[in-house]
Amino acid sequence: MQNFYTSTLLTKEKVFRDPVHGYIHIQHRVILDLINTKEFQRLRRIKQLGTSSLTFHGAEHSRFNHSLGVYEIARRICDKFVRNYPSLEVGDGLWDDRERLVTLCAALLHDLGHGPFSHTFEKIFDTDHEAVTIAIILSPKTEINAVLREVGPDFPNQVASVIAKEYPNPQVVQMISSQIDADRMDYLLRDAYYSGVTYGTFDLTRILRVIRPSSNGIVFDISGMHAVEDYVVSRYQMYMQVYFHPVSRGMEVILYHLMKRAKDVYLDEQQELGYSASFLEPFFRQDWRLEDYLRLDDGVLTTYFNHWTDESDPTLSDLAGRFLNRQPFKSVRFERKHDLKTVAELQSLIKRMGYNPDYYTSTNNSFDLPYDLYRPGQISSKTQIEFIQKNGEIIELSEISAIVSSLTGKVRGDERLYFPREITHGFSQEGINLFDNLADEFRSYIENDEIIQHK
Amino acid sequence: MQNFYTSTLLTKEKVFRDPVHGYIHIQHRVILDLINTKEFQRLRRIKQLGTSSLTFHGAEHSRFNHSLGVYEIARRICDKFVRNYPSLEVGDGLWDDRERLVTLCAALLHDLGHGPFSHTFEKIFDTDHEAVTIAIILSPKTEINAVLREVGPDFPNQVASVIAKEYPNPQVVQMISSQIDADRMDYLLRDAYYSGVTYGTFDLTRILRVIRPSSNGIVFDISGMHAVEDYVVSRYQMYMQVYFHPVSRGMEVILYHLMKRAKDVYLDEQQELGYSASFLEPFFRQDWRLEDYLRLDDGVLTTYFNHWTDESDPTLSDLAGRFLNRQPFKSVRFERKHDLKTVAELQSLIKRMGYNPDYYTSTNNSFDLPYDLYRPGQISSKTQIEFIQKNGEIIELSEISAIVSSLTGKVRGDERLYFPREITHGFSQEGINLFDNLADEFRSYIENDEIIQHK
Amino acid sequence: MQNFYTSTLLTKEKVFRDPVHGYIHIQHRVILDLINTKEFQRLRRIKQLGTSSLTFHGAEHSRFNHSLGVYEIARRICDKFVRNYPSLEVGDGLWDDRERLVTLCAALLHDLGHGPFSHTFEKIFDTDHEAVTIAIILSPKTEINAVLREVGPDFPNQVASVIAKEYPNPQVVQMISSQIDADRMDYLLRDAYYSGVTYGTFDLTRILRVIRPSSNGIVFDISGMHAVEDYVVSRYQMYMQVYFHPVSRGMEVILYHLMKRAKDVYLDEQQELGYSASFLEPFFRQDWRLEDYLRLDDGVLTTYFNHWTDESDPTLSDLAGRFLNRQPFKSVRFERKHDLKTVAELQSLIKRMGYNPDYYTSTNNSFDLPYDLYRPGQISSKTQIEFIQKNGEIIELSEISAIVSSLTGKVRGDERLYFPREITHGFSQEGINLFDNLADEFRSYIENDEIIQHK
Amino acid sequence: MQNFYTSTLLTKEKVFRDPVHGYIHIQHRVILDLINTKEFQRLRRIKQLGTSSLTFHGAEHSRFNHSLGVYEIARRICDKFVRNYPSLEVGDGLWDDRERLVTLCAALLHDLGHGPFSHTFEKIFDTDHEAVTIAIILSPKTEINAVLREVGPDFPNQVASVIAKEYPNPQVVQMISSQIDADRMDYLLRDAYYSGVTYGTFDLTRILRVIRPSSNGIVFDISGMHAVEDYVVSRYQMYMQVYFHPVSRGMEVILYHLMKRAKDVYLDEQQELGYSASFLEPFFRQDWRLEDYLRLDDGVLTTYFNHWTDESDPTLSDLAGRFLNRQPFKSVRFERKHDLKTVAELQSLIKRMGYNPDYYTSTNNSFDLPYDLYRPGQISSKTQIEFIQKNGEIIELSEISAIVSSLTGKVRGDERLYFPREITHGFSQEGINLFDNLADEFRSYIENDEIIQHK
Repeated sequence: MQNFYTSTLLTKEKVFRDPVHGYIHIQHRVILDLINTKEFQRLRRIKQLGTSSLTFHGAEHSRFNHSLGVYEIARRICDKFVRNYPSLEVGDGLWDDRERLVTLCAALLHDLGHGPFSHTFEKIFDTDHEAVTIAIILSPKTEINAVLREVGPDFPNQVASVIAKEYPNPQVVQMISSQIDADRMDYLLRDAYYSGVTYGTFDLTRILRVIRPSSNGIVFDISGMHAVEDYVVSRYQMYMQVYFHPVSRGMEVILYHLMKRAKDVYLDEQQELGYSASFLEPFFRQDWRLEDYLRLDDGVLTTYFNHWTDESDPTLSDLAGRFLNRQPFKSVRFERKHDLKTVAELQSLIKRMGYNPDYYTSTNNSFDLPYDLYRPGQISSKTQIEFIQKNGEIIELSEISAIVSSLTGKVRGDERLYFPREITHGFSQEGINLFDNLADEFRSYIENDEIIQHK
Repeated sequence: MQNFYTSTLLTKEKVFRDPVHGYIHIQHRVILDLINTKEFQRLRRIKQLGTSSLTFHGAEHSRFNHSLGVYEIARRICDKFVRNYPSLEVGDGLWDDRERLVTLCAALLHDLGHGPFSHTFEKIFDTDHEAVTIAIILSPKTEINAVLREVGPDFPNQVASVIAKEYPNPQVVQMISSQIDADRMDYLLRDAYYSGVTYGTFDLTRILRVIRPSSNGIVFDISGMHAVEDYVVSRYQMYMQVYFHPVSRGMEVILYHLMKRAKDVYLDEQQELGYSASFLEPFFRQDWRLEDYLRLDDGVLTTYFNHWTDESDPTLSDLAGRFLNRQPFKSVRFERKHDLKTVAELQSLIKRMGYNPDYYTSTNNSFDLPYDLYRPGQISSKTQIEFIQKNGEIIELSEISAIVSSLTGKVRGDERLYFPREITHGFSQEGINLFDNLADEFRSYIENDEIIQHK
Repeated sequence: MQNFYTSTLLTKEKVFRDPVHGYIHIQHRVILDLINTKEFQRLRRIKQLGTSSLTFHGAEHSRFNHSLGVYEIARRICDKFVRNYPSLEVGDGLWDDRERLVTLCAALLHDLGHGPFSHTFEKIFDTDHEAVTIAIILSPKTEINAVLREVGPDFPNQVASVIAKEYPNPQVVQMISSQIDADRMDYLLRDAYYSGVTYGTFDLTRILRVIRPSSNGIVFDISGMHAVEDYVVSRYQMYMQVYFHPVSRGMEVILYHLMKRAKDVYLDEQQELGYSASFLEPFFRQDWRLEDYLRLDDGVLTTYFNHWTDESDPTLSDLAGRFLNRQPFKSVRFERKHDLKTVAELQSLIKRMGYNPDYYTSTNNSFDLPYDLYRPGQISSKTQIEFIQKNGEIIELSEISAIVSSLTGKVRGDERLYFPREITHGFSQEGINLFDNLADEFRSYIENDEIIQHK
Repeated sequence: MQNFYTSTLLTKEKVFRDPVHGYIHIQHRVILDLINTKEFQRLRRIKQLGTSSLTFHGAEHSRFNHSLGVYEIARRICDKFVRNYPSLEVGDGLWDDRERLVTLCAALLHDLGHGPFSHTFEKIFDTDHEAVTIAIILSPKTEINAVLREVGPDFPNQVASVIAKEYPNPQVVQMISSQIDADRMDYLLRDAYYSGVTYGTFDLTRILRVIRPSSNGIVFDISGMHAVEDYVVSRYQMYMQVYFHPVSRGMEVILYHLMKRAKDVYLDEQQELGYSASFLEPFFRQDWRLEDYLRLDDGVLTTYFNHWTDESDPTLSDLAGRFLNRQPFKSVRFERKHDLKTVAELQSLIKRMGYNPDYYTSTNNSFDLPYDLYRPGQISSKTQIEFIQKNGEIIELSEISAIVSSLTGKVRGDERLYFPREITHGFSQEGINLFDNLADEFRSYIENDEIIQHK
């Protein structure tokens, strides 16, 4: 199935020191070659957590860093599987180690298509990181594709189909993408390590002891129920305390408006950008190719923002400065079903204070952040977390865990109205506020960090 | 001495979660305001370890991150001092807590003047990060200066004089800058944490228990001798294993040649850069102002490199690609006193293979990296590490520690010749090497990772 | 209120190195003197986790170790309180630091009355460790009492009333004894550290930032909700995974029967113990004094067990050997409401195999272990975990945490039938089993680690 | 070579959770059976660090705990060896995995012969823990021997010869016993973890990557030089800061005198012990058998001490109380070559104060503690730490490490005179000192924690 190139291991295992896993162990030449491609090296220049690092200053790690970790967890799972559950014949639901290489490649490459500040970027420019990942793998122009093709002409397709969740073996797919996969396990541990919080810590070594292949994908030994339960709680805690943090979202709102303004100015025939943001232009025009996408990284965007602080368009230069110098919008929580009228009221006040509401206020909910909590009701049954009992019967997690059951099927997070900080906090430097009356009225709608309604 | 603004503490202490120290505790409004200046926020965009993060992938943390840590250690030392050794009268050698604010500001700001890839940048453009730090503090145009001036008209000068090591109180100066200061203590712990090595770990809590103010600066209680000894060994280990790593230096050599080539092309009237690297131009011309310097960060440089991969100058685009895609030069160790002739021989071979030796080879020694090991022989006596005994007598560290004595006054590190990787490793993709004979000859001079001489 | 002796701090703070808290800081002479009493030193010889250390071999730490930790957490809470919430007038619900000393003493001494293998011992000999703690504090014959009396004649009474939860200030009582107190916080962290599991880890530093005094005792700032929620989950996990472990309970069952047998033999006029277990005799006779109690420790009991392996009574020597050489009874889960008849059936089989059922089988449920999960329904409202919101309103934890709500008011743990291991596992050494038929029948009632009923 | 019993692996690997190594992995039935013998379970009742746990309260772990760790490190080394350096033919200096079982057994059992407070016990009763280990392994009466015999009739001899360092394969011997063996690596990490100090931390994972088999035993890849160097420094630091701690030695001096007094009283025909310390009697009489030795543990000794506090012999009851209640002798440092006369003077003063100098004072040096620092001068060359270079040449550690060289061949530690604490610190309770003049004279000989000479 695989040729000489890839089936041969490195004569000497290579390791990368890693703060989360101790070492990343590289045993195949193809893995090393993939890491050394320029498309993979680009991930060094894209932060894993986007604007969250502006709230948790320790969490400045890149997607390169995380991708190695996902690879390493997948590798350890394969090791466990081949030692404890080696397939003896086709269809026995055990692990066929010929799947190892495609699994490892998919694990390593699963984030390849991320752009800078992915989710915000995608919203504005209508891109899709998963589709880009697949495109990079399949495009004959990329170094990634060239390396994968060395394994076999169909190998890029196989790796891409794992990413697309269409690979025939569900064990491989679920190891990379399910409610408890190598990706999520690595980012919880890694983001916790780098941000300095303890909430993301769960017992990886225990989970690696109880994970098992099955005909339908991945299951866990019942003896590991509490370890898996603890993982789900860790995930919930990381979302509540880190990923959904209101201040990070306050920077994200600025970022969104900043890129939108740049695009609007670029497309406006009356105006032009003083500084050539040439790598972004294909995206402004909605006419980009893969090679354009691969030029982008966090530094490119912030460099353009840096230049834009000199632009003549006051909205553009102001927002660029707010982002670069970390001046997040403030926010207040509201309930969509009761408070929409008050939200409109507040936005009208913002406008009356002289801010363009298209760029200086918006609502943001954490639900549409790209992280999904454990919600089996909304996903296909095959990615539920399941356990195998001593007598071979399967049981689903939320049936046996009151804690997980309490988190199941419920949307978490909150919805917030964002606005410039100076409205509620005054201008710290000058101490002048021309809109005192309006600001007072604005503040009268807020109590306990929530929107209240006037009687 | 200090006005209302600064002597008032925040009504509620503010904390930043930090993976190394747990929390960074902010108690003064002035500290919070300094952190929120744009000059300080810029440090988020400059990596602490430069090219080392290309060897230790975990170590992607910024100087912002480290600067908060230095501040926090200084704050903890002040707390210990005021609790245990409060000055009762002028000149008693104890701690006067009115020095706290200038100490904390200097600790926080000590790295403010660092540019992207500092040491390489400084070599090419003849800049000096310490001078820039002082300029930022003193310039009436910076936000930093504006905040500091709120404390008092002379306060910026005071903070600057701590950085310049000219502040009259040696306790303050040595807490920020000595053989065992808040800066070094933070970076050892932090760089170890982020890179995932254990070598930088020493017992900070123990050292904070034994550190004491004295008339001549800082001393340590004799009971903490082994903890301090362990710190010195940790520092030595971090230099040997992380900071002096040959691969990081292989990337630094490329970076140096890349910027040098860009400058040469820019200054060459025959050529011109296709892409306007406008923020760098004042530096190419050696005619820059502070505001130019403050536009620079890691992202700006890598964005220009990214654009330069499209330049028509082949050396420039090649080197830009090597840096961006992490293709370090390889190296071999040599001894200056015996091997210079062989080094010249090898460099001539490199030239004969078609490489421009001005950009494709150079020697690099780790001695001139900006880290100095404990070498009391070469520095003024006041920054030695000293202990106070029960009867009040002072004794210097290397007198009582055989280990430290063995490290004292000796230059560490090595000298290496760098050259393109393909010379000794072939072209992994194409498998073709036009210079087989020359490469064979080249390799014949290398054994055990060292230059050997032909008989 | 307090005399010179105790109100004076040590001239130099003394520290004990601690693996969980870094250092234990001793600032009062009275605390140091209490630690040096023989009653407190006795706690070094009593393991914190009893038979759990026979399942988690790492967890061999003593109650001395834990008691210092509880003291340290209480000390840190007092420090936070006095810094952030100092009482200005009586009855303002803030912290009066004159309560510090009584709080610290109660924290340090709260476990003083524990005997060896406390809970099993108490069941057999009808002792009560809390009552003994109070007796040690109040008895004029103890060194503890002598030290406390130096503070003031009523001081022992005050400390005792904190232990008895009758002290007038609820802040002091709840800091030592409530759903989230210094005791529980220390033992979760400590037991997790020593056993090597991660489940007990929660964010102590965060909780110390949000804990506050109130008129009714202790509350938490609403911003710390998730940290407190995480603590409750950690506690739940430690109970499920460590404290309720079936194997530890299998050793506890042996221990119980062993001591019961020794007592029965001692009280039986027909028999006598060959070896004088003199320290235990007052307990066999149910006629003991405080000084008898204070002679006991883990080593005394295991030494007697060691001697008893030579006793002529076969049950006594057999059980002593099983305990000493760690041969736990095996167990199977059952449901009291369905399975009692089957349990009786199995116990009758055990008897028919020749075992005395009084000593060789029993049921054990983990509910009556001395740890209670969060069950607000069963306890008085004042020890619920409560939060204070920005506008001053109080809200109870399970109202705002779905996770905690899911754990609330529900009994956790399971009920098991214990029996000699050889019944289901054969005799590993000799390979002979005289009761093969009976054993087969026995095993036919077990599936999936549970009792099943024959059709 | 090995029979079915032992060559068969467990059907399912068994793990023990361990705080230092994560998990201890048991793959052979024979290892599990050895752990379950009563001789091995006895090690749970013997503390690893003896009196050190009275200084570092966290370090209460047992030799059982440590023995599992040594086994686990040996197991990991075997795994590395068989994967990377499998022997292809006899005598090739590589690893023959048929040596695995004897290696693992020796690693697990190497401390089996330790008694309670080993070193002190051995001094008084002239026992030798290594000889006892071998006796337990070889005696046909032990469960250990029975398990080992199942492997093969000669297997106990093989395991014993590893302990005796006479086993023919030096790789096996050095893995268990050399300057850098599984034993030392485990105890450094473990003692550091439990005591809460950081000094014992070194990079085990790195060392496991560079360790290699060779014809002469064990060598290390030159690339791991700094990791090995760091291990040597860690060892030095643990000796200086933990193992040689003067207060622990102050308890050891009491322990020694206490047991000596008990023996003297027992052997004195005029006196008799009121309480039968029956397990100790064979040792008092110097006429013990292996089964007597195996009855002893820490609890047995402290239980006897507990009873002895009631003895009529005042020296015996006083010393028993001092040990039980942790009242260490104080000490002062001296230099044998200058201070012996002053030491004699001080001892005469102690006698004049009414203390029996045979039991109330003694000198103690840390050199004869059972830990030896790296002293290649004093040991045979084959146990030096050696490195293999790229070209195959061997080089010894102290030749390439200035730090190790500075520690080489030098005796570390100090010599101290011990005496009752009340001589220099008064009687804290009663406040009376009948020997004020003598005590003043005594104190006049001490300065800076050292003996000084009167002029």
